[in-house]
Amino acid sequence: MRSLINILDLSVEELSELIATAKDIIAHPEAYQEKCAHKKLATLFFEPSTRTRLSFEAAMLELGGSVIGFSEASSSSASKGESMADTAKIISCYADIMAIRHPREGAPFVASQAASAPVINAGDGGHNHPTQTLADLLTISREMGRLDNLTIGLCGDLKYGRTVHSLVEAMSRYSGIKFVFISPKELKMPGFIRYNVLEKLGIPYTEVASLEEAIGSLDVLYMTRIQRERFDDPWEYERLKDSYVLDVEKMKLAKKEMCVLHPLPRVNEISVKVDEDPRAAYFRQALNGKFMRMALILKLLEEAKQNPVKPKLDLSELETDRVCQNPKCISQVEQELPQLFRCTDKAADIHRCIYCEQRA
Amino acid sequence: MRSLINILDLSVEELSELIATAKDIIAHPEAYQEKCAHKKLATLFFEPSTRTRLSFEAAMLELGGSVIGFSEASSSSASKGESMADTAKIISCYADIMAIRHPREGAPFVASQAASAPVINAGDGGHNHPTQTLADLLTISREMGRLDNLTIGLCGDLKYGRTVHSLVEAMSRYSGIKFVFISPKELKMPGFIRYNVLEKLGIPYTEVASLEEAIGSLDVLYMTRIQRERFDDPWEYERLKDSYVLDVEKMKLAKKEMCVLHPLPRVNEISVKVDEDPRAAYFRQALNGKFMRMALILKLLEEAKQNPVKPKLDLSELETDRVCQNPKCISQVEQELPQLFRCTDKAADIHRCIYCEQRA
Amino acid sequence: MRSLINILDLSVEELSELIATAKDIIAHPEAYQEKCAHKKLATLFFEPSTRTRLSFEAAMLELGGSVIGFSEASSSSASKGESMADTAKIISCYADIMAIRHPREGAPFVASQAASAPVINAGDGGHNHPTQTLADLLTISREMGRLDNLTIGLCGDLKYGRTVHSLVEAMSRYSGIKFVFISPKELKMPGFIRYNVLEKLGIPYTEVASLEEAIGSLDVLYMTRIQRERFDDPWEYERLKDSYVLDVEKMKLAKKEMCVLHPLPRVNEISVKVDEDPRAAYFRQALNGKFMRMALILKLLEEAKQNPVKPKLDLSELETDRVCQNPKCISQVEQELPQLFRCTDKAADIHRCIYCEQRA
Repeated sequence: MRSLINILDLSVEELSELIATAKDIIAHPEAYQEKCAHKKLATLFFEPSTRTRLSFEAAMLELGGSVIGFSEASSSSASKGESMADTAKIISCYADIMAIRHPREGAPFVASQAASAPVINAGDGGHNHPTQTLADLLTISREMGRLDNLTIGLCGDLKYGRTVHSLVEAMSRYSGIKFVFISPKELKMPGFIRYNVLEKLGIPYTEVASLEEAIGSLDVLYMTRIQRERFDDPWEYERLKDSYVLDVEKMKLAKKEMCVLHPLPRVNEISVKVDEDPRAAYFRQALNGKFMRMALILKLLEEAKQNPVKPKLDLSELETDRVCQNPKCISQVEQELPQLFRCTDKAADIHRCIYCEQRA
Repeated sequence: MRSLINILDLSVEELSELIATAKDIIAHPEAYQEKCAHKKLATLFFEPSTRTRLSFEAAMLELGGSVIGFSEASSSSASKGESMADTAKIISCYADIMAIRHPREGAPFVASQAASAPVINAGDGGHNHPTQTLADLLTISREMGRLDNLTIGLCGDLKYGRTVHSLVEAMSRYSGIKFVFISPKELKMPGFIRYNVLEKLGIPYTEVASLEEAIGSLDVLYMTRIQRERFDDPWEYERLKDSYVLDVEKMKLAKKEMCVLHPLPRVNEISVKVDEDPRAAYFRQALNGKFMRMALILKLLEEAKQNPVKPKLDLSELETDRVCQNPKCISQVEQELPQLFRCTDKAADIHRCIYCEQRA
Repeated sequence: MRSLINILDLSVEELSELIATAKDIIAHPEAYQEKCAHKKLATLFFEPSTRTRLSFEAAMLELGGSVIGFSEASSSSASKGESMADTAKIISCYADIMAIRHPREGAPFVASQAASAPVINAGDGGHNHPTQTLADLLTISREMGRLDNLTIGLCGDLKYGRTVHSLVEAMSRYSGIKFVFISPKELKMPGFIRYNVLEKLGIPYTEVASLEEAIGSLDVLYMTRIQRERFDDPWEYERLKDSYVLDVEKMKLAKKEMCVLHPLPRVNEISVKVDEDPRAAYFRQALNGKFMRMALILKLLEEAKQNPVKPKLDLSELETDRVCQNPKCISQVEQELPQLFRCTDKAADIHRCIYCEQRA
């Protein structure tokens, strides 16, 4: 039995397999409409996220299964102080698989350690959101016909946007990938991605401040929202915000064969008029998310059936002499949860909390 | 593909057809219990309305379909600033049909323009609530055996009650209808109904202040709640409220063949003791609402299947030189939504916002 | 047609029958997976209780039925002032059976009097929670192989814990039962249980303050949470709280053949390390709750089908000359609900409100 907590839990081969299943579902939906008959998905949303929740629920229903769950913490036992681990054990009595959204980083991982059913991370704070990345990958594959030999531009808030970090990590495993990072200096791609992922793997990237200058070189443009509250200086925000808005004028500078992605919801960073452009792929991306979630649910339920045993943490590899300082880590609140760290880089002496993956 | 935004979107023939379908469902429920297998209804309730939501959900389940959705705005992406149009496009990826309740007038219409699935207006502020009127029509038809040649009394808050306005508009298309409007002077039926609907069509009506005097002449009595906050003078409210309460004493003055309707919830405007009177039809009315919603879902899904193309707004008929002043109109908040008006009466120079239908 | 409001509504024979059905469901789940096809359960939760709600929903789905409902009062018509009786009548239009959770004592009973579908009490304030007791009984039966000849320890808050009161009432009907009540003096088992149930029936019990001393004699240990706010003196709470925490050390003093129950959620009254002990039955208890709810739904739907007539209150037995003083009683707020009392003990002149069962 396996869970999906981080997009890197899946190998490139497994991603190909999920993409192939999703394409087969798109081609032959009736062949799948009873695959999960008598199976139940629990959607445990400790903070609201309508689109993600409804995408999971639609996915399970289109497989012939059914859904239970809650959509915010106030309706949940967490408000009575129940631990994540206990909730996961209880929900394992009621459902065959669960999707967990939680404001605390590492909460779905803690759940996966306690549950006797597979857990899908549906977003844990600013940490991971692997099914968004699955939607992104299927969209690039369907729009461009390939996942390699692409110049991928990421635009907007590259510092805090977990979806862009996951996408860089995932795409870095394909060949012939170049990245263009388009952002104001306040919101640049963080070092742990640039050094630990790209430079380590020898993947070329450039950093630019202007969407207008960069757009002509791109095969894929991934847009994100810039939030006013990220800037120290509000005037700086006012001065910059329009340069990161994608509009019809900027689209004229882009290649004919190109696609625009956005994790949605969009506020005003893409003009509504761009929606009619055939290169605007962000609503198709939402649809692709549903198909990838269907493929993922099928895969995890199949693996749980083949092998119900859950892989155990190898405690001998872990360190217990540190305390996590990340205020958003699940280890700050979870009852009787041991502090556990893993050395991720011996040379640089880097140790990371196994729950939230922040450095000690 | 069609949506239902306003009860007048349906012709008298279509209403007859829906009523006939509902009666067939009542007679042969098992014949319908798989009609919507593998179909999904999304219930998008941006404000709570349990009865309406559960009625839609029960309707879809009794057709063999399934349901996704949310029951209040805090659980929705709207709290992250997503536009109505974007939400409608996304939900079209997840569901085959959607029912939308929204505090802003015109929001379901905006959704229907963006969605690629049929939209049912489940109530938009004080504007429209067409499926309530469908419930009312089936109830009158079943209780009285006809929809024509009826004297219909409407009692209570006739000024702000959208359900009574829609019912007057809908019943005005049948022959032999007379209306009796029973209300305090503060809450009289507004001019746009009296002049534009009734006087234009030559339909007789009287306005009275006393339920006791009027009740004996009625075939149908439609009760509504009077809210204290509608009165400028609280003493006036205290003086009047009991005269608009239907009790066992007043029922003694009514005809033997007569029926009492109420959109529910009732607070105290109908005494609980009236419930046992066979003429009290308001709980049967709730049941009829479910059957009409079943008939409507079937009709809209069938039309979408026959013709998936959505009728487009004819922009040449519309005016763009006005701005809607209605603070509750969806156009006050929806991103990049053009202001559009339609001239509804050339002689009187009346122009109405196409979203909320208020005069410029 | 019957409802389940109080565990004592079920005879010992009926409990045996429910337990037998639950065990058959566990042995042959596929034989039950379409038993409730085309049936709907409404879960009406006027206050959140995720585990109980999801247990009911999972139960109905595993019977092939479907679910509608709400998970907190703000999403319900109650926020518009609708009475419990009206809500129950309306929901009877939409569902075949309903489970009601309500903060007001007696609310599910009022609903059962108005509804035309069976009502299950899913917890009404501090009053009753019969399906929790059903879970407890199946757990004891499965863990110990019997429901008689047991020494049952109840530990923690015995004063306010409705689950322990119901369990004592239910187990008192089996032979060879002894109770050990383990609590601080502030939270002792109340007199109405000790005198009216145990001493009347001649069932032996002891009262002790130390879990450590008592644990060795027990076949069943039922743990509950002690809440700080129950104590007049916070120092007393601090002094006592650890003595009522079950940990690995205390488990060493217990019998080999013994089981630990807890209604959950647990906060810290049972150490997480005890979970691995094979005698820790509290997560299996949650699973058993689902199976007993399945058995109960089947039984109540079958009875409603055999005999749709609802037993009426015999008003000649009831007294109308008293007013309930319990501030949490449904009769304090329900519109036009008559005050009704029943004499439960002529000799002692005890009269109880029929809704909340408090003494006049």
